[in-house]
This record gives sequence, C-alpha cells and structure tokens, in this order.
Amino acid sequence: MSTTNSIINQNILILGTGAVGQALAGKLLSLGHQVNIGTRNVKESLSRTEKDNWGNSGIGLWIKENPTANLINFDDIGRGFDLIINALSGQAVLSVLSGISTEVLDNKIMIDISNPLDFSKGFPPSLSICNDTSLGEQIQAEFPFLKIVKALNTISNPIMVNPKLLEGDHTVFVSGNEADAKSFVSLMLKSFGWEESQIFDLGDITTCRGTEMFLPLWVRMFGKLGSPIFNINVNSKSK
Amino acid sequence: MSTTNSIINQNILILGTGAVGQALAGKLLSLGHQVNIGTRNVKESLSRTEKDNWGNSGIGLWIKENPTANLINFDDIGRGFDLIINALSGQAVLSVLSGISTEVLDNKIMIDISNPLDFSKGFPPSLSICNDTSLGEQIQAEFPFLKIVKALNTISNPIMVNPKLLEGDHTVFVSGNEADAKSFVSLMLKSFGWEESQIFDLGDITTCRGTEMFLPLWVRMFGKLGSPIFNINVNSKSK
Repeated sequence: MSTTNSIINQNILILGTGAVGQALAGKLLSLGHQVNIGTRNVKESLSRTEKDNWGNSGIGLWIKENPTANLINFDDIGRGFDLIINALSGQAVLSVLSGISTEVLDNKIMIDISNPLDFSKGFPPSLSICNDTSLGEQIQAEFPFLKIVKALNTISNPIMVNPKLLEGDHTVFVSGNEADAKSFVSLMLKSFGWEESQIFDLGDITTCRGTEMFLPLWVRMFGKLGSPIFNINVNSKSK
Repeated sequence: MSTTNSIINQNILILGTGAVGQALAGKLLSLGHQVNIGTRNVKESLSRTEKDNWGNSGIGLWIKENPTANLINFDDIGRGFDLIINALSGQAVLSVLSGISTEVLDNKIMIDISNPLDFSKGFPPSLSICNDTSLGEQIQAEFPFLKIVKALNTISNPIMVNPKLLEGDHTVFVSGNEADAKSFVSLMLKSFGWEESQIFDLGDITTCRGTEMFLPLWVRMFGKLGSPIFNINVNSKSK
C-alpha cells in the first residue's frame, strides 16, 4: 500500500458489476490501475450485453468495451489486492462478503459505497437498516479485519469519478475507524479530481449512519431535479 | 391570509418556547408581526430566567427582553391566527396539538420545524420515527384540517432567520401537500432573507422523510465543525 502523494499502478478489486462498479472501474483503468471485478458467475455476467432500464450497460457489454479489466468469479478471487471497493447492492453485501475467503479480505482497505436501499415497495426506496445502525457498521462488525472507509455513497456515479462535472463547490464524506485507511482513500479521491477541501471526514464508522440516512433526501432531490448530476456542498463560510 | 408579495402585520402563533421558537419569534417581531407564543403554563414559563447548558435564554428571560411578544397558555389560545409555527420538540408535538382546540387549528397553515430527535441515549440523537413515515406526515394525518408545510428543520436557528449569515449559496427545503400554503411559506422565508433560488420545493409532505432523516448527518457535521453556523447547498450546476 502506498501512502505517498501519488497512487500508481494499484491492484484493485471491485465487488459489484452494476453502474457504480462500472463507473469506478472505468476511472481506475484510465488512471492506469489493474482492475479486477468480482462477480458471482463470470459466464453469466458476460452474457449480459443489453442496456438496462436506466440506460446502463450490462457488464458483458462493458467488458467488451473495456477488455483490460479482469472479470473474476468471487470463488476464484486471490490475495494481494491493494484496495477493495464495495460497489455491491446493499442487500447483497453481507452474503457476498461471507462467501469470499478471509485471506483475501484480511487487513485490506475497503471503500464501501453501498447503501441499504430497499426497493421492494418501489420508488422512492426506503432503507433496509438505519437509525440505530448502518450497513457500514454492520460490515465492519462482521469483518473486523477489514479497514472500512465509507465514502462516495451520497453521490451519483458520474460525479463520484468526475467531481469537476459540477461547477462550484461540493462535498464528499468519509467515515471510518482507521486514520491510515482514510488517508489512503483521500489520496484515491484526489486522483479522481476531488480537492482536499471537498473531502469531509465525519469521524468513525458510526458516522456513516448520517450519510446512509441522507439517501432518502437524495432520491427526492433526484425526483425533483430529474437528473443525478447534483451534489450537496457543506457551506460553513460565515460572514 | 395574504398571498401578495409582501406579508405584513400577520397574527402569528408559535408553539414552543425553546431556542427555535425564540429565534423565530424575535425575527417575526422585528418584521412587525404580532407574535404569540404558546406554552403549557405561562406562570411556570415566566419563572425560567436562567440560561441553559447551550447558552440559550429561558423563555422568562427572553420575554423580559421582548415584552411585545404575547406568552399564552395552550388552553387559552383563541382563533384568528394567520399562521402557526410548530417549534415544539419532536417528542411533544402530537400531544400538544391534541390539547389545542380544533377551531384554532382548522384550515390553518402550519410551518412544521420539528424533528423526531430522540436524545434518550445521549448525543448524537437517533430518530424516534423515520424511514416508512415521518413526523410531518404523522401531524398531517392526525390533523387533516391543518395545511402542514415542513420547512427550516434542516437548519440551525441563527441561519433559519438570517440566511445571509453564510457567504455563498445554501438551501432551505419545503415539503407539503398544499401549493397555496407552500407559496405563503415561501413569501415568509423570503421576508427572512431567503432568495427564491435557495428554496427547494421537494414535493408533498411525504418528502419530509428525506429532510427529517438528514438530521443524523447534520448532527455529525455539527460535531465535527463545532459550530451550528453551516448549511448545505444543493449544487446542480453542471459544466
């Protein structure tokens, strides 16, 4: 793990083949990293070549367009990653992680972008867990050997990896128990285009209750604005 | 009820004698309105002349400094108000409203600033209700003759009534079922100093699930910033 100012040529494992995973994978490829995308079944994933209702590519199509990314079965994931990114759906996270060898995860930094969104009653979603706990905390508690850094979960994919899409200031929150892991993630965020001043370290992993519970406001702003190209800025500039 | 561009000389009932009620009352007095503050027991309220742990005045002290405000027992509240402001603690709202005559509340616009904060386990608070409902919705459902407009509940008192305290843009959200009521509240917000472009109408009253569930993030930002003089801005300016 590099903690210098530049993060280069990292070996990164992304869990999740959806729009979030694809956006992160594309950005990380463009930055010269080795990108591995974990999936339940590579063959089945490669067969998904349609666009979905949201206009997002199936992972099969995406891999065709990005052949340097390595699609890999969860069962075949090996050791030696510099960073793991959790871009799974909130409902799947805990069961998928339980199926991955402890050796793969041991002592690894994981950027957790997942949100416990429950779409079972349609749109807008509610949260499957909240208030007295959070998904970030549950992952950290079940996998104490992971260094979880919750980040980017309040922001739409295009802005996650290209914050300069928005004119003017806006904020990315990070939560986590390990200072070194947060420093590493901050460097990664800066390589995406985030400025130091835009990164708001809320504190330990329990503070991600706040960012996960922000999602119900996000989805309603999205409903009103009709576009995911927005973010919030924390303005504390008193006159 | 005036729906012209200027709202003058309104007869306003504020429920709640705490810091939020006082901030609103002071601003409304300065704008020339008649301000009535409802409380359970006027005599007991007037005896509260100390500052609390947060440095806020007891309502007895505040009334001494603002003698044109009218402190009134909930039981003695009459009809004829142009606007009601709910600045009660979230835990008290439903029981206090149940004790007020239906005639007082009938067909009235109510700005609901309350949040269902539960401090029973200390700071930071959790929410006593959230996710599948909200306090704003519960008030609207129990008192269907009120026109509830949820607003200002995501913002600290000083900024609620003086948005120009912050340099640069920031946002106030409104939620409610009645367009005319939201228009009236928007005029009131503008009289406080809010710009039209800063007022974000999220939609019907169910959208206040989003703003109430924002509080867990607010309290953690407050914990980190060490000051309540901040707010969020919704930035949707794509380049």
